[in-house]
Amino acid sequence: MQFLSDNAAPVHPKLWEAMRAADAPDTPYDTDALSRELDARFTALFGRECAALWVATGTAANCLALATMVDPHGGVICHEEAHIEMDECGAPGFYLHGAKLLLASGAGAKLTVDSIGEVLAGITRGVHQVPAQAISITQASEYGMVYRPDELAAIGALTKEHGLGLHMDGARFGNATAFLGGTPAEAAGPVDALSFGFVKNGGMGAEAVILFDTEQADMIRFRRKRAGHLQSKGRFLAAQILAMLEDDLWLENARASNAAAAEIAQAAGERLLYPVEANELFVRMDTDERAALRGQGFAFYDWDDTCVRFVTSWATDPDHAGALGKAIAAL
Amino acid sequence: MQFLSDNAAPVHPKLWEAMRAADAPDTPYDTDALSRELDARFTALFGRECAALWVATGTAANCLALATMVDPHGGVICHEEAHIEMDECGAPGFYLHGAKLLLASGAGAKLTVDSIGEVLAGITRGVHQVPAQAISITQASEYGMVYRPDELAAIGALTKEHGLGLHMDGARFGNATAFLGGTPAEAAGPVDALSFGFVKNGGMGAEAVILFDTEQADMIRFRRKRAGHLQSKGRFLAAQILAMLEDDLWLENARASNAAAAEIAQAAGERLLYPVEANELFVRMDTDERAALRGQGFAFYDWDDTCVRFVTSWATDPDHAGALGKAIAAL
Amino acid sequence: MQFLSDNAAPVHPKLWEAMRAADAPDTPYDTDALSRELDARFTALFGRECAALWVATGTAANCLALATMVDPHGGVICHEEAHIEMDECGAPGFYLHGAKLLLASGAGAKLTVDSIGEVLAGITRGVHQVPAQAISITQASEYGMVYRPDELAAIGALTKEHGLGLHMDGARFGNATAFLGGTPAEAAGPVDALSFGFVKNGGMGAEAVILFDTEQADMIRFRRKRAGHLQSKGRFLAAQILAMLEDDLWLENARASNAAAAEIAQAAGERLLYPVEANELFVRMDTDERAALRGQGFAFYDWDDTCVRFVTSWATDPDHAGALGKAIAAL
Amino acid sequence: MQFLSDNAAPVHPKLWEAMRAADAPDTPYDTDALSRELDARFTALFGRECAALWVATGTAANCLALATMVDPHGGVICHEEAHIEMDECGAPGFYLHGAKLLLASGAGAKLTVDSIGEVLAGITRGVHQVPAQAISITQASEYGMVYRPDELAAIGALTKEHGLGLHMDGARFGNATAFLGGTPAEAAGPVDALSFGFVKNGGMGAEAVILFDTEQADMIRFRRKRAGHLQSKGRFLAAQILAMLEDDLWLENARASNAAAAEIAQAAGERLLYPVEANELFVRMDTDERAALRGQGFAFYDWDDTCVRFVTSWATDPDHAGALGKAIAAL
Repeated sequence: MQFLSDNAAPVHPKLWEAMRAADAPDTPYDTDALSRELDARFTALFGRECAALWVATGTAANCLALATMVDPHGGVICHEEAHIEMDECGAPGFYLHGAKLLLASGAGAKLTVDSIGEVLAGITRGVHQVPAQAISITQASEYGMVYRPDELAAIGALTKEHGLGLHMDGARFGNATAFLGGTPAEAAGPVDALSFGFVKNGGMGAEAVILFDTEQADMIRFRRKRAGHLQSKGRFLAAQILAMLEDDLWLENARASNAAAAEIAQAAGERLLYPVEANELFVRMDTDERAALRGQGFAFYDWDDTCVRFVTSWATDPDHAGALGKAIAAL
Repeated sequence: MQFLSDNAAPVHPKLWEAMRAADAPDTPYDTDALSRELDARFTALFGRECAALWVATGTAANCLALATMVDPHGGVICHEEAHIEMDECGAPGFYLHGAKLLLASGAGAKLTVDSIGEVLAGITRGVHQVPAQAISITQASEYGMVYRPDELAAIGALTKEHGLGLHMDGARFGNATAFLGGTPAEAAGPVDALSFGFVKNGGMGAEAVILFDTEQADMIRFRRKRAGHLQSKGRFLAAQILAMLEDDLWLENARASNAAAAEIAQAAGERLLYPVEANELFVRMDTDERAALRGQGFAFYDWDDTCVRFVTSWATDPDHAGALGKAIAAL
Repeated sequence: MQFLSDNAAPVHPKLWEAMRAADAPDTPYDTDALSRELDARFTALFGRECAALWVATGTAANCLALATMVDPHGGVICHEEAHIEMDECGAPGFYLHGAKLLLASGAGAKLTVDSIGEVLAGITRGVHQVPAQAISITQASEYGMVYRPDELAAIGALTKEHGLGLHMDGARFGNATAFLGGTPAEAAGPVDALSFGFVKNGGMGAEAVILFDTEQADMIRFRRKRAGHLQSKGRFLAAQILAMLEDDLWLENARASNAAAAEIAQAAGERLLYPVEANELFVRMDTDERAALRGQGFAFYDWDDTCVRFVTSWATDPDHAGALGKAIAAL
Repeated sequence: MQFLSDNAAPVHPKLWEAMRAADAPDTPYDTDALSRELDARFTALFGRECAALWVATGTAANCLALATMVDPHGGVICHEEAHIEMDECGAPGFYLHGAKLLLASGAGAKLTVDSIGEVLAGITRGVHQVPAQAISITQASEYGMVYRPDELAAIGALTKEHGLGLHMDGARFGNATAFLGGTPAEAAGPVDALSFGFVKNGGMGAEAVILFDTEQADMIRFRRKRAGHLQSKGRFLAAQILAMLEDDLWLENARASNAAAAEIAQAAGERLLYPVEANELFVRMDTDERAALRGQGFAFYDWDDTCVRFVTSWATDPDHAGALGKAIAAL
């Protein structure tokens, strides 16, 4: 019973169908009919004009999005446990040509106006220090927590005040939107660019970079090519994304994933490090308990000495989730 | 009737099967069973030890391969019409952190010992000038011409003499190998790294970086991640590549593609700019003739004022090839 | 008798005086009184608002200036024999983070509207190709030739038409201004940024980056620091530059240098490869002739098999120039 | 009475003499007689083979030195208050092409085997995380504290164990050597590369990059040129450095500077944040006390709300130091 990662989940059948349907001759790169549909579809989804580009990975999406806001000599304020800091092997340094991540704290891997303010307050040395040019937040966060609309608005106000860009790493944007229960526009808040994740939510290899500052789109198209991310058969990436948007499959998948996590969360109770708002559970567990669960066939990730991580996905069997909940309760 | 690009061809059915078969839970990134098979499979194919990494595009494959040989202050000798110079939007400059392409000439977009020597002879200014550190050749070349084993050996000798690395852009390596009729090792010659292309030969989105200097593999794994090219569901890329190697499907596809090109070539006769050795034809044609062919339903690319380009693929219908040959002959 | 390079010339006595005078406690970096004077002094000199930053070398000046106009994925059109292409060890690739030099031809290492147009005409492949974002010209050129005001105006018009920046490498800007006989503003023409050279003209280690788009100055101050070019005792660089501007010492030095070159040029006659407009002479000479001159005590540079290069400086002894002229005439 | 920074101190008279003596024609860049002496002089000084290159600034020296050890995808462990982290505007990210600084703690801005070990222990995610490739320490540290030979040996042993390079930022290496009382080799310990600072110690604009791995020297000569740091009149930088080495002027200057600091330190007593081992004093002081001292003519830097910083230099008048000591004691 697989709770290791939503990366390990299968591809949704509707995406297979869409990819097969796309397997007809069309023009290469992003000039095909499907790729050309993306801008309009996301503009409709968010209710404001945006440009949408497919890429294969969240790392590429994050870095291209940040490249619209950050100079090579600039800095990006992010959480000290953000994916861009911890898990992308310095990709932002590569794509942003040496720009720096400026680390802020915050419970549950969420930034706050205060923690961002502390970083800003430390930038006092003029040209001797890297200037902050953007803030990057993760929705839902690396600990599965979700920024509320008012929190987003407050951070947005801060960016306006300081002339900063605002980027959202939405590797689990579907889970966050499903949790909030509102529109994707509400879950995105006042961001300038969003990495809209699909791979963890039933996709094969397609994420979307959403640029609300559409004037940056041309530049990012060059940058995507230059990074080797302009696939010649891009129609298959577009097909995945369009299938995800069709009848809000992305939301349906995220709801299923969240529901499975919620069920386990209820059983985990006091063991939880953080409230479970999306599809990740961080659960305190000692070595013996871990072994016991593994003995019952549960696969999961040893986060650190204190806790383990379970991740549900669109494909998590409700029976498996139920079984895991019971097993944890019985520890 | 599609002769625009082999990029526009469909994905081979066996690859669809392989990808569907890979759609079972496995560990993410390149830790899955399929990805872990690649090194051994390519080592067997080439008869010498190598490391093999999947990436989605030829641009990424070329640039990662070159990163094993070239410092940020170094230079790569390549043909002035090489893909890395003309069609990758400066990707080598990005991946190699500012390293420079040093342009050489050569008929049919093939480098020669002489044309490489001319570039080397011009590097005389010590630290004031970028030093050459590698040579990159394209097999088959951008004009569909194939380096013969003795030509590869001569260039290889030159690299040894000057302490240079040797990279091969093998976007159409299958076509070259099929043309030569020998082993892939013969078609690769003494290269240090090969970008082994599958996308133009029936793949969806998977190419292989082959490193014959296996000590560089660890470094390139970091660089791949850092470039956002370590897909979390990498098993689908590995599946495509393994399906291609199975029973030499890659060669079978390339032979079909070459055969279609050869048939058209025979009809094109004196109109050909270059001998047709792979699956590309560059055919002299005036405006009226182009219009006439298009009127008959043929799609192709206007290369320049003088000639057009036809590209065949593994999926080219022999009837279409025959029809095109007749139509050209009848012009 | 030294005609090897104006780099080898001594530092002008007035600059020594100015540096010694600057050797009093002041605030570090560029916050001292002298450095803060630069903007106003160059604004007065050019008769239009500009920002001026000192750096130690022409390479740094060129690259920082170009950084105001060129994205990492962009290109700079320059002459195929430009200093930034031939003699800076890939510095533009470093400072511009992989941006590319797009090479154009032109007699005497001068670009023309036509040669620039040819490069622009070859940029047709959309995101697959590096877009041109700037033009860089050298005043006086690498062959000592000077752009006339109407030539500058024509190139300026082209930049406006295509939305390009215009940079001038003015390593020998003094010589060009002296030759034209007008104002420095006329010699600079409609450039957006100028590398104003002093080292070859009697300086020790100070050049000025002049930004006519003053909004870029803050960015370039960060970039200068980041490149390790913000010297902590910057007052000594400012002192050199201010001494050069005082009573137009830079023009006086350049005139002396040009005059020495002109005298030799008259003697060289038909041997000259290019008209001598500044302080460099390219003179056809065979091996025996070179040896003969060296036997008479003249030091100079073997440019290539065909010709040698003589460079005069502010400090060239008129007697030496006369002697060289006679020696050449007597060959 | 100037205690703001050793950057603000004058240039030592012997360096002026040496520069004036160097103002005779010689070959440009680093091919002159003085520059060619450096390797031998530093080899003698350290008693082991090394290569020595001049550059104008400590930032350039640090970054070039680090470039011998760190790949673009690598990381450098340094103190969270190290100059390369806090005061160089991201220069390491630029020179190392996106490589990352990995921050460690330590009292007095000194790293310890334990604090380095903590960073190393956190690197567990394989290709998803930047690998540590070097350690950079500052001798004397940013708080004026000196690594003892046994501390250096312990860190050196750690680098061997983990295959890391070891760099020393020696902006105040003279002060550290003077404090330790031994040889410069002892003060440097087992470092692979040293930024040997002269500017804060009576220089005008010359620091030395010392490479004990001499095979890297050629590479760094290219990198220096590429960074615009190969000054054409490099003889003036070499002259400064050679004058510093002559009769150990660098040590004499550092001793004078340290002595002045020691005198003030004695008076400051309990107010000191750190023991005074070099030429910097961090002294607790409230707003009124600061004003009182400034009212008596002392210039110094407000480090933060708690303390101020005084820096002495080779040129600090002993009477000024005495006066400052008395003034602090009298607060």
